[in-house]
Amino acid sequence: MTRLFNDPDDFRDELVEGFVAANGRWVRAVPGGVVRSTRGDEPTVSLVVGGGSGHYPAFAGLVGPGLAHGAAMGNLFASPSTQQVHSVALAADQGKGVVFSYGNYAGDVLNFDAAAERLRADGIDCRTVLATDDIWSAPPEEKEKRRGIAGDLVVFKVAGAACQAGYDLDAVETVARRANDRMRSLGVAFDGCTLPGAKEPLFHVPPGRMAIGLGIHGEPGIDETDVPTAEELAELFVSKLLEEVPDGVDLAGARVVPILNGLGTVKYEELFVVYRGVHRLLTEAGAVVVDPEVGEFCTSFDMAGCSLTLLWLDEELEQLWTAPCDTPAFRRGQVSGQHTVSAEELQAKAAGADEVTEGSEESKQHAEQVARVFDAVATLLDEQADELGRIDRIAGDGDHGIGMQRGGRAAKDAARDAVGRGAGAGSTLRKAADAWGDKGGGTSGAIWAAMLDALGQAVGDTDALDARAVAAAVRAAEEAVEKAGGASVGDKTMVDAIVPFVRTLDERVEAGDDLGTAWDAAATAAHEAAEGTKELTAKLGRARSHGEKSVGTPDPGAVSFAMVVRTAHQTLWG
Amino acid sequence: MTRLFNDPDDFRDELVEGFVAANGRWVRAVPGGVVRSTRGDEPTVSLVVGGGSGHYPAFAGLVGPGLAHGAAMGNLFASPSTQQVHSVALAADQGKGVVFSYGNYAGDVLNFDAAAERLRADGIDCRTVLATDDIWSAPPEEKEKRRGIAGDLVVFKVAGAACQAGYDLDAVETVARRANDRMRSLGVAFDGCTLPGAKEPLFHVPPGRMAIGLGIHGEPGIDETDVPTAEELAELFVSKLLEEVPDGVDLAGARVVPILNGLGTVKYEELFVVYRGVHRLLTEAGAVVVDPEVGEFCTSFDMAGCSLTLLWLDEELEQLWTAPCDTPAFRRGQVSGQHTVSAEELQAKAAGADEVTEGSEESKQHAEQVARVFDAVATLLDEQADELGRIDRIAGDGDHGIGMQRGGRAAKDAARDAVGRGAGAGSTLRKAADAWGDKGGGTSGAIWAAMLDALGQAVGDTDALDARAVAAAVRAAEEAVEKAGGASVGDKTMVDAIVPFVRTLDERVEAGDDLGTAWDAAATAAHEAAEGTKELTAKLGRARSHGEKSVGTPDPGAVSFAMVVRTAHQTLWG
Repeated sequence: MTRLFNDPDDFRDELVEGFVAANGRWVRAVPGGVVRSTRGDEPTVSLVVGGGSGHYPAFAGLVGPGLAHGAAMGNLFASPSTQQVHSVALAADQGKGVVFSYGNYAGDVLNFDAAAERLRADGIDCRTVLATDDIWSAPPEEKEKRRGIAGDLVVFKVAGAACQAGYDLDAVETVARRANDRMRSLGVAFDGCTLPGAKEPLFHVPPGRMAIGLGIHGEPGIDETDVPTAEELAELFVSKLLEEVPDGVDLAGARVVPILNGLGTVKYEELFVVYRGVHRLLTEAGAVVVDPEVGEFCTSFDMAGCSLTLLWLDEELEQLWTAPCDTPAFRRGQVSGQHTVSAEELQAKAAGADEVTEGSEESKQHAEQVARVFDAVATLLDEQADELGRIDRIAGDGDHGIGMQRGGRAAKDAARDAVGRGAGAGSTLRKAADAWGDKGGGTSGAIWAAMLDALGQAVGDTDALDARAVAAAVRAAEEAVEKAGGASVGDKTMVDAIVPFVRTLDERVEAGDDLGTAWDAAATAAHEAAEGTKELTAKLGRARSHGEKSVGTPDPGAVSFAMVVRTAHQTLWG
Repeated sequence: MTRLFNDPDDFRDELVEGFVAANGRWVRAVPGGVVRSTRGDEPTVSLVVGGGSGHYPAFAGLVGPGLAHGAAMGNLFASPSTQQVHSVALAADQGKGVVFSYGNYAGDVLNFDAAAERLRADGIDCRTVLATDDIWSAPPEEKEKRRGIAGDLVVFKVAGAACQAGYDLDAVETVARRANDRMRSLGVAFDGCTLPGAKEPLFHVPPGRMAIGLGIHGEPGIDETDVPTAEELAELFVSKLLEEVPDGVDLAGARVVPILNGLGTVKYEELFVVYRGVHRLLTEAGAVVVDPEVGEFCTSFDMAGCSLTLLWLDEELEQLWTAPCDTPAFRRGQVSGQHTVSAEELQAKAAGADEVTEGSEESKQHAEQVARVFDAVATLLDEQADELGRIDRIAGDGDHGIGMQRGGRAAKDAARDAVGRGAGAGSTLRKAADAWGDKGGGTSGAIWAAMLDALGQAVGDTDALDARAVAAAVRAAEEAVEKAGGASVGDKTMVDAIVPFVRTLDERVEAGDDLGTAWDAAATAAHEAAEGTKELTAKLGRARSHGEKSVGTPDPGAVSFAMVVRTAHQTLWG
């Protein structure tokens, strides 16, 4: 279990601080994560990696010459926010474009994609190469849907070495994508990890049993067996991965890099005993083992588990995999021609992610209204946090109340700050969105950030807003939520409340109602839909206490959404 | 817990095999451990480190240019045998002398010292620098008695860099000793580790509690508290270590290297949160932090714990600490001018540790008698292993029977092999001694190895042996046991049986008895003494079952010794 922390809420920030204090030779802190403290003789394409914290050395431990240029560091097991990714990318950019690389998880895709859009708006070209190596998370014909696990390292190393070698943006993207295509992983776990401050592990595997294909955040595996011998595990790993040798690779004489990765509490000696079998089996199969790695490259706190990754080399990949690099946690040979960069310079670059657009006079007045709504919403969520937590505990993990409370408070402060700096309504909403995403955490944080950001983009910083403009902006926000969450009406999620809200608002505005009246009716529709999910929640609670099977998963997000739009009405028209 | 293994008896050998397969860039296997696979342009002093397995990256993970030249790899948590250390040292030697460095534990001292004697007999000068950094294992005025924990890395790194820089043997020893003098560590643990195949952890710390000063093999700590916050732990570490700033160091402006080491399941993120406090507190105290390390440098399988080491630099130590090195687990910058060495060459060098001396005709006849005794002893111990285990379980950990059985079998095979190669009696006994030490393990393995080795040295490979010569050799063996074990008569150890055996043998030989008669009487005396410890064992068993306090710790070693000398009599004169 995880024992050493102060306030669990501060864990991510404090670990970043300690990490930077210990590794100033390689990295400097910027808002959202870290970037290299050095720069080469010539500017290159920049590689920005990232993801949730709790997987060290992924991701920040892999920043340095020959590998990544920056790492966006999210909260524990949570994607970095859009703003965090954007900020790190701005600080890492050298004018040659940016490649994003990270493991394939919905939250990360959402935020990195949004940050890529912002980078392009800044005039910086940006590409994305996902790691999709976990063979048991989707079938071979859907490789693009697979999760990224320890194979992250392979894509990062190849892309980082390509940047270092002076490849242009197209070429870095191409070779990194090929690295991912020629790489497969399989993981097993014996028990779950405990997040700082949690009383219980995220999940349990029964004693004496091993979960096969279980993800690094506890995502379900597809099989469970008795704990095998080291030799049996080596056989399982190698046989399953040899079933998926990439097209065009002839096993006889194929050059392959095995990476045997410990997730936290399967220790080095055990890994070496397993590796002994892996090495022999690969060699017996006719492959030539090149430059293997055995150790901890992508952990999950103290999870008991390990994974094997195989990278099937070609000449170019071998050159890039074996090229020098120098980072806090992964080093090879020597990278020449590196010079120190000042902290001030990096902070100034990253600050580009925190600029606001000056609003027109009309838009500044709207911004003041927006800030008043966030003031009221923050007060509302302070009052309702416990109740939202209670509802969420029936259907989920109980963190919805605290997440909404943190997000609402952060949004309020960010909106007030933006108004103070002369921002228009759109920028104010987008700053509030970033702050909600940063501090709210979890799925609700990401969805509220996406919704408010889309609302802000639609609203802009110039126009005076009439009822039709607001209704159109709200429709854009709804689309962002559906894209971010991937849910539809009837899935019993937040979408169940947003859709009737938007439909009613549209209808009433079309019918000629003033905005306040239309909003009132729309808020009522959202409330009624949310009551439906509340009823379902209650029913689910009863069903669980009677040992019945699940009757669906209602989302407290619908309830909180209805509360927020009601509060907005009271603030502006009440 | 440790889950991945095959036959636990093979764990050490299999981990060495896997480690070498994964790290052929740096190391090659030789009997007893590993040595570098590369050699520099000029020969240097060689640094040989080592200890029990289970502490990776200590010790084999630290072999490579700029750091150690070889590592002797013992069984799990058990010292390497004398022969293992000797073999690795021979392979590592470059003609400029050898420095041994390792953590201060009785078993390691015993075997490394004996190997140093063998090296000197080979004409190779050898020095020893122990790591004695654990401040809570002995008071400051007895620093030389302290255990070595993660501070091993400091002594190894400084000594290895000094070798690399071309220092001579005296100079390497001097600066390594200064590194140890200027270095202090303090460790804490939250729970114990489980050795491969064991059902239970070596020890437990109660849930929610933290043991302070607990050793890396579960040696008792001196205090226990509730689990502190990360900040409180940083304060504990720094305050205790600042109480012991070495003489002559002025804290204001002192340059210090902090090494925050995880023992296995306290993970990186937690370590960084603790390090944040350590860094701030050291800086607030006026010290200047140089080149810190946060990670896993000396583990104990999956033990939950961590330690802080502080190295107080001077100019020379700073140069050596920050010098380049390149090993499987610890790398910095680039070491130039390294060339690959063939496996054959290293095997040939290490083979010097396995030479036998051709015996005179008389000594060869004695060697045959020795081999016959070992045949009979191996059979005896096969039969008595369960009974010896039963006795040991009352007083100890129950492994005496299996240890004696393994040692006896290995000694039998080694003696037969030596006789087949024409060895004299002395060499035959010494080969048997090495094998017993290698395979027997534990304290009894080390003591039997020391006893048989001393016996072999005294017997030699030339002389025909009369009763007086045998009695003198047996006296030498007794002295070796007392030196190795540090026990006296009445301590209820194996010594209780050896002393009456030797005294009786001496008396009867002096009185003119023939050797067979004298040995018979001596074996009877040993048996009577052993019966005394058996009675004590039974009494202890009763006391325990009645919940009484300990009545002393009898040693099944006395019982097995008596059995062996009785069997020797039956074989030679029975």
